[in-house]
Amino acid sequence: MSSLKERSLKLHKDKKGKFEILSKVPLRNADDLSLAYSPGVAEPCRVIHENPDAIYTYTTKQNTVAVVTDGSAVLGLGNIGAKAALPVMEGKAVLFKEFAGIDGIPVCLDTQDVDEIVETCQHIAPTFGGINLEDIAAPRCVEIEKRLVSLLDIPVFHDDQHGTAIVTAAALLNACRLTKRKMQDLEIVLAGTGAAGYAIAKLLSSLGIKRLYAFNKEGIVRPSKQSSYDAPLQELIDKKIVSEPASSDIDTLEGLMKGTDVFIGVSVGNLIGADAIRGMNKDPFIFAMANPTPEIDPKTAKEAGAKIVGTGRSDYPNQINNVLAFPGIFKGALAARTQSIDEDMKIATVRALAHIISDEELHVDYIIPSPFDKRVVDRVSLAVKECVAKRS
Amino acid sequence: MSSLKERSLKLHKDKKGKFEILSKVPLRNADDLSLAYSPGVAEPCRVIHENPDAIYTYTTKQNTVAVVTDGSAVLGLGNIGAKAALPVMEGKAVLFKEFAGIDGIPVCLDTQDVDEIVETCQHIAPTFGGINLEDIAAPRCVEIEKRLVSLLDIPVFHDDQHGTAIVTAAALLNACRLTKRKMQDLEIVLAGTGAAGYAIAKLLSSLGIKRLYAFNKEGIVRPSKQSSYDAPLQELIDKKIVSEPASSDIDTLEGLMKGTDVFIGVSVGNLIGADAIRGMNKDPFIFAMANPTPEIDPKTAKEAGAKIVGTGRSDYPNQINNVLAFPGIFKGALAARTQSIDEDMKIATVRALAHIISDEELHVDYIIPSPFDKRVVDRVSLAVKECVAKRS
Repeated sequence: MSSLKERSLKLHKDKKGKFEILSKVPLRNADDLSLAYSPGVAEPCRVIHENPDAIYTYTTKQNTVAVVTDGSAVLGLGNIGAKAALPVMEGKAVLFKEFAGIDGIPVCLDTQDVDEIVETCQHIAPTFGGINLEDIAAPRCVEIEKRLVSLLDIPVFHDDQHGTAIVTAAALLNACRLTKRKMQDLEIVLAGTGAAGYAIAKLLSSLGIKRLYAFNKEGIVRPSKQSSYDAPLQELIDKKIVSEPASSDIDTLEGLMKGTDVFIGVSVGNLIGADAIRGMNKDPFIFAMANPTPEIDPKTAKEAGAKIVGTGRSDYPNQINNVLAFPGIFKGALAARTQSIDEDMKIATVRALAHIISDEELHVDYIIPSPFDKRVVDRVSLAVKECVAKRS
Repeated sequence: MSSLKERSLKLHKDKKGKFEILSKVPLRNADDLSLAYSPGVAEPCRVIHENPDAIYTYTTKQNTVAVVTDGSAVLGLGNIGAKAALPVMEGKAVLFKEFAGIDGIPVCLDTQDVDEIVETCQHIAPTFGGINLEDIAAPRCVEIEKRLVSLLDIPVFHDDQHGTAIVTAAALLNACRLTKRKMQDLEIVLAGTGAAGYAIAKLLSSLGIKRLYAFNKEGIVRPSKQSSYDAPLQELIDKKIVSEPASSDIDTLEGLMKGTDVFIGVSVGNLIGADAIRGMNKDPFIFAMANPTPEIDPKTAKEAGAKIVGTGRSDYPNQINNVLAFPGIFKGALAARTQSIDEDMKIATVRALAHIISDEELHVDYIIPSPFDKRVVDRVSLAVKECVAKRS
């Protein structure tokens, strides 16, 4: 059997990309054309012109989400640009359809300038019911999302931040349920303070985590030191979400992990070894989510004493996969026609996701539902809709 | 039976808009996800990053056209804005699919500024194999198209200009074939010097028309007078495509039409009456293409002596409909991977379209093929491909 790489290339080539457009209306004769196109189409146009809100009644806007990237942080491949990012955006588009019945439209932008990305999203927004930002590098992704959320009247959600954070938090919640530990007692090491790391730290803080140490490609993050951290990381420091390491002697990631309970990696493949796991407290949780290669091989982590291991991959147990969050979140947001996806919705989603698995079902290899669990999208979208209902 | 307006509204509401996304790949299990999404999708990304041209092999770019508007000149409804334009763009998107198998994606822009429209199209271009500009007001549509054609490496085609011009020219060619007249002998009155009028005048000039008089909402166009014409119209005057009226005494459209052979209307409904037709030369051709209401009712025109009448509507004979041109043109352009759609291609398309109808079949009510004639898209796309082959 040929390799995964070869099979994936063949699939993409044979299918000529991964999605197509399908007409929902018949176009077989002049009468059909009169209704769907000229002159009949003038009527929904007139109605929407009189009442812009009617766009949600007569067009695809009610069910369409743009999947927008600038190609600057694609999977673990880095800044490969707009064109090379298209296969991922197409994949996301078809996941939207498969998992939530939402029509995702890939939009790969030929610019990596914050102002231009924001303006382009503003300009194309009328067509879409929501915008899913994808694979845009930190720190600018944080600013882009914040500006779009305040500018647009449709929900904007940077999946690499919040999707990852929500699913990670749900996995951690269930790891605690299974092992009868309390979230607030955990000491956590977070490797990677980009888009995902930033959102994970914020969400875990909302969920009661007190001690979270951070590490990134510049080394250990030390809040006490005057350093030129980027804006999102500085925000985490200012809000005391990132803690000062116990000793100033600690100068390696392995040292930082010593005596902690949880490792969360959203960084690069093969970052840590078995010794790092051995130095942690007993029965640690290891969420090694770098794609496509995790921070540590799951087998190695288990053999070194990890109680629970999760990765981002579909070929290992406990896949901490955004597909558990974004389809239901957008499905709920579109159904409730909310203009924003707020912190309460994210927390509600974490709990909804975690509690799909009953106490009896929980297991070291089953702390997070399968992406193919049909209950996921309904529970998540319901959680979002309930939050909107409470707000109003 | 309820009215067309009511039926169209009901259709748009019941179907929740006119298109949806369909996955071309299976997404039923972890293996499917590994191939279409992470980690397998990384491989086509890597290949495209190494060789950007491979985007045409592994993605939907090879078959996708953005249908872009700013909502400033939608059908005959005028400047109704981006949101109200969406039903038309959706209609165009599904026509692309139905008639050429091309995946059209509506993009309605929340700006009517030339620079911003050009920049937005540049930024979203990586995703698409071509851009179909639609329902953008003149004169800026002409500048936008010219700038995009020179900036982008994908074909850009403003359908309201060139689609209309090509089909009008094909109809005129066949009207001449049927009545044994020569194009160069015809005197033509063109009502409307916006996007369509500008392109019709240019294309007819390329096809040998010598006398074309123009009329627009400011009145009769007089090349001899110093007047503040917009840039596209001034271009027609500078290139002597618009002729000076025979006498300076002529001060009405009816007067201008007196003694001419062809009326081409791309203006507003009910512009002319029966008397205007009666004043023309014997057996005139009347192409009254304002939508949804023609410049003159076809019955009235016939009764007043018109030999051949065409409109833009699907409920009358001789529908001069862009759907005869744009699907085949983009199908040919995408297949040949040409970066531009030049004048030669347009002329070849005119001839291909006209000659689908044999001498024996030609009839006053059949001078242009039906939009449902299956030969149209193949003949038109072949004509485009042959032009590209000759160029190289």
